[in-house]
Amino acid sequence: MRYAIGIDYDGNGYRGWQTQQEGVPSVQLTLEIALSKIAAHPVIVHAAGRTDAGVHASGMIAHFDSPSIRKPYNWVLGTNTQLPPDIALRWIQPVSDEFHARFKAVARRYRFIIFNSPQRSSQLAGKVTWHYHPLDVERMQRAATYLVGRHDFTTFRAVECQSRQPVRDVHFLKVWRQGPLIILDIQADGFLHHMVRNIAGVLMRIGEGKAEPEWVQDLIRVRDRTQGGVTASPGGLYFVDALYPPEFELPREAPGPVWLQG
Amino acid sequence: MRYAIGIDYDGNGYRGWQTQQEGVPSVQLTLEIALSKIAAHPVIVHAAGRTDAGVHASGMIAHFDSPSIRKPYNWVLGTNTQLPPDIALRWIQPVSDEFHARFKAVARRYRFIIFNSPQRSSQLAGKVTWHYHPLDVERMQRAATYLVGRHDFTTFRAVECQSRQPVRDVHFLKVWRQGPLIILDIQADGFLHHMVRNIAGVLMRIGEGKAEPEWVQDLIRVRDRTQGGVTASPGGLYFVDALYPPEFELPREAPGPVWLQG
Repeated sequence: MRYAIGIDYDGNGYRGWQTQQEGVPSVQLTLEIALSKIAAHPVIVHAAGRTDAGVHASGMIAHFDSPSIRKPYNWVLGTNTQLPPDIALRWIQPVSDEFHARFKAVARRYRFIIFNSPQRSSQLAGKVTWHYHPLDVERMQRAATYLVGRHDFTTFRAVECQSRQPVRDVHFLKVWRQGPLIILDIQADGFLHHMVRNIAGVLMRIGEGKAEPEWVQDLIRVRDRTQGGVTASPGGLYFVDALYPPEFELPREAPGPVWLQG
Repeated sequence: MRYAIGIDYDGNGYRGWQTQQEGVPSVQLTLEIALSKIAAHPVIVHAAGRTDAGVHASGMIAHFDSPSIRKPYNWVLGTNTQLPPDIALRWIQPVSDEFHARFKAVARRYRFIIFNSPQRSSQLAGKVTWHYHPLDVERMQRAATYLVGRHDFTTFRAVECQSRQPVRDVHFLKVWRQGPLIILDIQADGFLHHMVRNIAGVLMRIGEGKAEPEWVQDLIRVRDRTQGGVTASPGGLYFVDALYPPEFELPREAPGPVWLQG
């Protein structure tokens, strides 16, 4: 039986989603150990996306195979008992064997959250990117419009990115303010390595007034990472959703993080 | 010179505000060490209230004395550099020697935040109190009205409470829902030990339907802690504000936690 699962996690305690080397904690391995105890056999988990060290998820989707039959409630409750507080299983659902969390995803969605305040706050330490220079959201919104659509994102791609091709289709990129928070909300068919954090770095520079919104057009055209400015810190980044063809009938949750809905 | 300060902190790493014994981390001691480095002499900090282990603050107000003259910006920036990420100085302001953070406070305000969802979430672990039974906010609101005003709160007072008298004047107690969160917002002239957490425990029981809103009237009348049910866990509790006579001209901030404004 194949199972789809929805997971949230705080990335601060992990070197990212994927198990890179022995003895280094990863979200994937921690989750596999917990699920294996409930399934009563070793479990391998495949996720929609592999987040970097310190990056969070409010709506990661993954799958695993198991011959074990449990009620969804018992899977979730049992697994959460085995997991540390910074990882939680939100739901589980049997799916067809055709489903694959990574290869069947037609879109992925991230949110990047900036705490824009002269002083840092302890309340969201590690959960937002603190930026003390005032940011002009209207400028950031104008810059964002140039990134929507099908573009070569070479300038926004980490040098070590292993993707075969740099063209991605950005479905939307919204920017708005909620009190002292500024939220970037971006969906695309897929993302290059560091793509959201590099976009966030560019938009913050424009929001500060150090570059014009039209700079984004130049950056897309030049296809050169060295022109693209700083990579924003991982603490503000959340994997919030993965989309699949409707025939898989996965549960839908409001995009997080959960405290943003508050 | 006397200085008033505004502080926020995440209480998870501390055995409460006050230094109880050597080697046990307290918010007070951590703050005093940081301020002493910037002041260049030993500093003693007096706070508006003393929060318990695991309780947070978004708007704690305190004061200290120092002959050192620094620009407010340099006090804040310097102290925050010395503080760990889970404590932050929000502002500092010179005040008259008449000011005392504890004895001049005319009111204190707390918020208690419940994450009301069938599954726990990693996103606010340690920052909310998770309650998986659905809660009826309308019932909780009705119960809250009975607590407003001047009452003997003996039933809602920890057995070890050292206050001389159990009468407190509750200015308001509001209850509302924001998505999966339920917020209790309470202001009074002062609070007894565990008073907010004991009120939260009673309101959650009523919200679950296990007791009627009018039960609160009985509890006030009976003056017996053993009748008052469970003390809610500290993770959802925030000291959000202290109020002083207007002549002290302290800065006013929106009550937190900051992510609730999001």
